[in-house]
Amino acid sequence: MIGRLNHVAIAVPDLGAAVATYRDTLGAQVSPAEDQPDHGVTTVFVDLPNTKIELLHPLGDNSPIAKFLERNPAGGIHHVCYEVDDIAAARDRMVAQGARILGPAEPKIGAHGKPVLFLHPKDMCGTLVELEQA
Amino acid sequence: MIGRLNHVAIAVPDLGAAVATYRDTLGAQVSPAEDQPDHGVTTVFVDLPNTKIELLHPLGDNSPIAKFLERNPAGGIHHVCYEVDDIAAARDRMVAQGARILGPAEPKIGAHGKPVLFLHPKDMCGTLVELEQA
Repeated sequence: MIGRLNHVAIAVPDLGAAVATYRDTLGAQVSPAEDQPDHGVTTVFVDLPNTKIELLHPLGDNSPIAKFLERNPAGGIHHVCYEVDDIAAARDRMVAQGARILGPAEPKIGAHGKPVLFLHPKDMCGTLVELEQA
Repeated sequence: MIGRLNHVAIAVPDLGAAVATYRDTLGAQVSPAEDQPDHGVTTVFVDLPNTKIELLHPLGDNSPIAKFLERNPAGGIHHVCYEVDDIAAARDRMVAQGARILGPAEPKIGAHGKPVLFLHPKDMCGTLVELEQA
């Protein structure tokens, strides 16, 4: 059911330093920073040949990644995002298997303009999993 | 310089449960479990269309992921692996930029039979980064 790995999201305390790490030290292509006020983050995409890394920095007072950075002050991998063809069908299948959706069961529009859901890390090998309709 | 995301490694406390999560709940293709005594892990690969997820479970008394699972008893994302064309050249470039190699500077043969190095998480946005010669 799950398809491509859409992205790996890394929360970072210093976006400029993270951009320098990926652009200069690792030599990757990075996009300009983009504020996403609806999602409480500023994002930079690292383009790899087969997927992307999404660098996330808190934006505003209620950023969903603020607590993660309190626990992980140097930053860390925040979530992985898998693509699915039909997010409602995927949700129904996973809920029937006992997986829990974080927040409302209705998919909302994510940072890429597509419907997304998050699955509870306790049901997903300790990792926060985002599903995005491809 | 870095190329494809070769894999995302997830350390798991219960390999059978992790396989069930990826195979049954998420509906992905998973490989048979394989003991890798030289690396202190048992691995299962989750094949995605563009990359793979590597489920890691400790093997033996000195597994390199044992401490990670003590800190993260439910499991969690252990590292990401980026491909490079020439690992010695990549190492030299990164060391010149101030990044630190974990362990000896000479690449060793990793779980896929190819030369690998690990970079210090403190220099990599709080994430453990493996480089593998493609």
